[in-house]
Amino acid sequence: MIKVGIVGGTGYTGAELLRLFAQHPQAEVSLLTSRKEAGQRADALFPHLRGHCDLSFSEPDAAALARCDAVFFATPHGTAMEMAPSLVDKGVKVVDLSADFRLRDRGVFKQWYKLDHSAASMLDEAVYGLPEVHRDAIRKARVVGNPGCYPTAVQLGLLPLLEAGVIEFEGIVADCKSGVSGAGREAKVGSLFSEVSDSFKAYGVAGHRHLPEIEQGLADIAKKPVALSFVPHLLPLVRGIHATLYARLTTPGVDLQALFEQRYASEPFVDVAPAGDHPETRGVRGGNTCRIAVHLAPDRRTVIVLSVIDNLVKGASGQAVQNFNLMFGLDEQAGLQALPLAP
Amino acid sequence: MIKVGIVGGTGYTGAELLRLFAQHPQAEVSLLTSRKEAGQRADALFPHLRGHCDLSFSEPDAAALARCDAVFFATPHGTAMEMAPSLVDKGVKVVDLSADFRLRDRGVFKQWYKLDHSAASMLDEAVYGLPEVHRDAIRKARVVGNPGCYPTAVQLGLLPLLEAGVIEFEGIVADCKSGVSGAGREAKVGSLFSEVSDSFKAYGVAGHRHLPEIEQGLADIAKKPVALSFVPHLLPLVRGIHATLYARLTTPGVDLQALFEQRYASEPFVDVAPAGDHPETRGVRGGNTCRIAVHLAPDRRTVIVLSVIDNLVKGASGQAVQNFNLMFGLDEQAGLQALPLAP
Amino acid sequence: MIKVGIVGGTGYTGAELLRLFAQHPQAEVSLLTSRKEAGQRADALFPHLRGHCDLSFSEPDAAALARCDAVFFATPHGTAMEMAPSLVDKGVKVVDLSADFRLRDRGVFKQWYKLDHSAASMLDEAVYGLPEVHRDAIRKARVVGNPGCYPTAVQLGLLPLLEAGVIEFEGIVADCKSGVSGAGREAKVGSLFSEVSDSFKAYGVAGHRHLPEIEQGLADIAKKPVALSFVPHLLPLVRGIHATLYARLTTPGVDLQALFEQRYASEPFVDVAPAGDHPETRGVRGGNTCRIAVHLAPDRRTVIVLSVIDNLVKGASGQAVQNFNLMFGLDEQAGLQALPLAP
Amino acid sequence: MIKVGIVGGTGYTGAELLRLFAQHPQAEVSLLTSRKEAGQRADALFPHLRGHCDLSFSEPDAAALARCDAVFFATPHGTAMEMAPSLVDKGVKVVDLSADFRLRDRGVFKQWYKLDHSAASMLDEAVYGLPEVHRDAIRKARVVGNPGCYPTAVQLGLLPLLEAGVIEFEGIVADCKSGVSGAGREAKVGSLFSEVSDSFKAYGVAGHRHLPEIEQGLADIAKKPVALSFVPHLLPLVRGIHATLYARLTTPGVDLQALFEQRYASEPFVDVAPAGDHPETRGVRGGNTCRIAVHLAPDRRTVIVLSVIDNLVKGASGQAVQNFNLMFGLDEQAGLQALPLAP
Repeated sequence: MIKVGIVGGTGYTGAELLRLFAQHPQAEVSLLTSRKEAGQRADALFPHLRGHCDLSFSEPDAAALARCDAVFFATPHGTAMEMAPSLVDKGVKVVDLSADFRLRDRGVFKQWYKLDHSAASMLDEAVYGLPEVHRDAIRKARVVGNPGCYPTAVQLGLLPLLEAGVIEFEGIVADCKSGVSGAGREAKVGSLFSEVSDSFKAYGVAGHRHLPEIEQGLADIAKKPVALSFVPHLLPLVRGIHATLYARLTTPGVDLQALFEQRYASEPFVDVAPAGDHPETRGVRGGNTCRIAVHLAPDRRTVIVLSVIDNLVKGASGQAVQNFNLMFGLDEQAGLQALPLAP
Repeated sequence: MIKVGIVGGTGYTGAELLRLFAQHPQAEVSLLTSRKEAGQRADALFPHLRGHCDLSFSEPDAAALARCDAVFFATPHGTAMEMAPSLVDKGVKVVDLSADFRLRDRGVFKQWYKLDHSAASMLDEAVYGLPEVHRDAIRKARVVGNPGCYPTAVQLGLLPLLEAGVIEFEGIVADCKSGVSGAGREAKVGSLFSEVSDSFKAYGVAGHRHLPEIEQGLADIAKKPVALSFVPHLLPLVRGIHATLYARLTTPGVDLQALFEQRYASEPFVDVAPAGDHPETRGVRGGNTCRIAVHLAPDRRTVIVLSVIDNLVKGASGQAVQNFNLMFGLDEQAGLQALPLAP
Repeated sequence: MIKVGIVGGTGYTGAELLRLFAQHPQAEVSLLTSRKEAGQRADALFPHLRGHCDLSFSEPDAAALARCDAVFFATPHGTAMEMAPSLVDKGVKVVDLSADFRLRDRGVFKQWYKLDHSAASMLDEAVYGLPEVHRDAIRKARVVGNPGCYPTAVQLGLLPLLEAGVIEFEGIVADCKSGVSGAGREAKVGSLFSEVSDSFKAYGVAGHRHLPEIEQGLADIAKKPVALSFVPHLLPLVRGIHATLYARLTTPGVDLQALFEQRYASEPFVDVAPAGDHPETRGVRGGNTCRIAVHLAPDRRTVIVLSVIDNLVKGASGQAVQNFNLMFGLDEQAGLQALPLAP
Repeated sequence: MIKVGIVGGTGYTGAELLRLFAQHPQAEVSLLTSRKEAGQRADALFPHLRGHCDLSFSEPDAAALARCDAVFFATPHGTAMEMAPSLVDKGVKVVDLSADFRLRDRGVFKQWYKLDHSAASMLDEAVYGLPEVHRDAIRKARVVGNPGCYPTAVQLGLLPLLEAGVIEFEGIVADCKSGVSGAGREAKVGSLFSEVSDSFKAYGVAGHRHLPEIEQGLADIAKKPVALSFVPHLLPLVRGIHATLYARLTTPGVDLQALFEQRYASEPFVDVAPAGDHPETRGVRGGNTCRIAVHLAPDRRTVIVLSVIDNLVKGASGQAVQNFNLMFGLDEQAGLQALPLAP
């Protein structure tokens, strides 16, 4: 079995890694660190793991991590860039679920995360972990920067349109909605049940950290700059992102449904919904699928794409396992085959 | 006391009219009809009214309705246009919460509602009940077509921009989200708790009945056609609409905050939120307020408006009472002063 | 207008006092203190108050509080007992929403709240603010200990049975369920949306602070000790307590419905539901009503009482205003007449 | 592969059978019937199954069903008793998720379900499918009556206490709470999101169909009659049952934790939580586990048991698959190993 370490396993993405690896046929989590919860059993924090995970949290220990084959960082920003370089030197492969290895431009990183990047050469080497775009590079990568949740839903929704060059590359609108688990398991007034339940609001209209990541990713796909408006909103539900994307068609008459179906025909984790469909977030809850529907608006000029993921799976830990599978030459779907849960 | 009749009081808008009139100082509901529930007490269906409403449902009876000073239709489409003309002939003022008197063009009405309009001259006379646009006409109206919920949130959000002519009149995006009560109190699988809870989806991307109403209203405001993309979504919450509106600024440097504050300075039910704010739907839950925040996007070219209402109050029954107050020369705020309920 | 001060207004009970007093015809909040939020407008924290409350938080200041006619403590335990005595000395009437003046026995207080009681004589003088039991004493009180939420629902549900002596005074079961707002507006992992939503659990089975308060109250009513099992549970909803109470009937054939209706005939805030009813929490959401249904179980021996309140209103701030009205000789219902909000 | 047919697959238990069998290594669903949805793909109704289930609904056809190795009835009451006998005659094994084969006494069946039982001899032969009690009989059964959801949670919670004879066999209280999916996927006003969300209530206090099933099961376990009060409540969540059970201890000093742990030591789907724990429903969401915590109340006389299941899994389809595995001599856990989903 491939030995996996998880740094910072007390949040939702850490718990989700434990859930997914518990079902992985070729890998197992052998080390789970948390300063705060050291000594505590993982299934005491996350009772749904009872019977499937015997690990306890331990103090982060560089030597023990170096004995793993792969290490996942499920930490706040700033930790992975400190710890990853020495692990990689020792032959450990790293998947970072924080933002430390997503943005190639250190200036942009500093602007949005208020930190100097301390691992410049590793950043240059790191591969952006969106398999539908960078699969080959991921296979060879030593460090993968796992994409953010909103960027995953937005990029996969626009990818076929940008690659085919059938939309205007400016004036795109990405109206995005996320479940509350995207805000993590930290105690914050704004994430309290009594604050969030039975309500809905936008946030970060003036600017959100995922905007530069989206812009970088879309430009990579389009091979030139793409300008969009991005507004995130907070949904009163736990898991799920729904991106509603609006773009102007430059090529009237293009068969949008065929375009999407062909582009994603061999992608194991992108499902193009039937024509006319409106995918719901719960249809992918717990699964690693991104489900996409593409519509032509009544004005016959606007393309409307509906893209849904589970923010904790394809938007975080599931995609991380997918990247891990690629990095180790395993079946890309290993450990990711449990069905979504609905209702 | 002004005598009010309600036709079709078994749905949520009917119940909400009962709640609001129970607190109205100059009017009272004297007749409440429902074929299905005739004989049943209203507070048996709606226990929150216990102690505040002694009415029982009765069979619809034209003579009894004609003895009311005002009649509200909280019925499916098609009923008001049958019953309103003879009531109006007898001097009864009518507020219709259905769509029968919203669209001036009978062809458009037929296209979207699949019904021939049977009250053409009354339709010509009817006033569209958005007080912020048509207050004077409402004051003199015998029949008011009460606006739909989405159209209210969208029109109030775009009104200052269109009146001032500072945005492009095409390419507007109205990404709208509604609570489930907007779908009414009918037994439908799609509105079941187990279908809707913990999930989110778009619907009606190919076309929604509120689109022609929005287009008519925006054209009235702008004095010329306005083209927009409108996508409604279903939120897992009971009450609330959030419209996120995107438009391209044609006049750089305009002070958007001042524009909105000035336009709505004397409006009792439109609240312009402080600059930079993100209004939440629960902040207006149970109240007749439309709260609006206006933002300039990071690209400095796109205006983003956030507009929230309670779909059952400002989006339906509260606005109906506001119209009623205007029609009867009462204080526009009578019966509408209870505070929203949060958390 | 009677001048009201609120100490600690940043939680849900503080916000609820502001909402209720905004609608009170004879009193107004003139002072609102919070160390943490001093300088901040109240409606910035609680946007549903916009347009109804112009107050800002200020540093707690004894002199300013002493200029109020009444002061409400919406603070954690331990604050009121420090500050109340000097206010009362200066003629200010005090309603304490914390537990400082609920338990008469200081030893019991210390056992459950881990604090020595620092205001012993004031504790002796304080009246337990359950108007249905202690109305006359409340009218004359200088200090009222406002009941806890669970104790209110349980005591009102059992009161007619205990007063009439028709049940066994031991072996009673109080299975209680509360919405999350009962846990307050503090940032705690256990109150996060993602922890609480779509789930349900019991807590505090080994012992809960409300148990001694319930036992004291029931013994006052019964004039002898009453033994019960009390299990609180956490509901995935914001507002509402539902107490399901089981007791053994000692007097077969008693007309339970009549017993409850007669006992509560003149109580403005206790509503006995029709025979056979199952009251729902949202039927009293936002209102000061306790709604109670009484059933005889199929075994003809067990009485089952269903008692619902809004924990923030009859279970906290609404009852506090009711007590305030009594203390100042006002109409007991002043400020408490807005209807509950449903759906 | 063992061929499985499902009669009535359009409800939640049918969908759940499809989800579980999609992960079953030795069986597959080959026939799925529904009169109403014949011709429709299953994944059109249940998009979470896309990619995992290619079946379409077909008209119920006796011959086709007879070609299956096993048939599950996920139908309303009354269907299985009509169709099962001829299937069993042809060697098909039957698991009935409706109530047709749960109650041994036909008079009791008629009293609660208002139907004459039309398959008396098959009823005599049928085995009650609670593996923790009847495992050996299930292994040999041709027809299994799959237990109701409440009865599963209640019986497993009381079983060790009754078998050990350490509680009084009367005066037991079973205060039970269920998620809305327990009411099925039928369009009913009472199950609408806007009726159920943000609210909580009891129902069926005067009598519920699961009471006779619980009494029969407890008597089987205790070998004598057991008397309890049973009150079901409706939780605003989709999946989950929480039974809070109160009984009087007759044997002071018994080690309750050890009693439960020993009784369930070899049960694959009953998990005794650590001493002092409060299991939450989401900890078993999507899984076939019943998690139980046992407490001694502060009075040292009352045993309080907290028992949680997912009503659609251990309370319905998961237990049905568990019974199927036993009937076919497979690993009892086959197809049931996916982890619960939380948060």
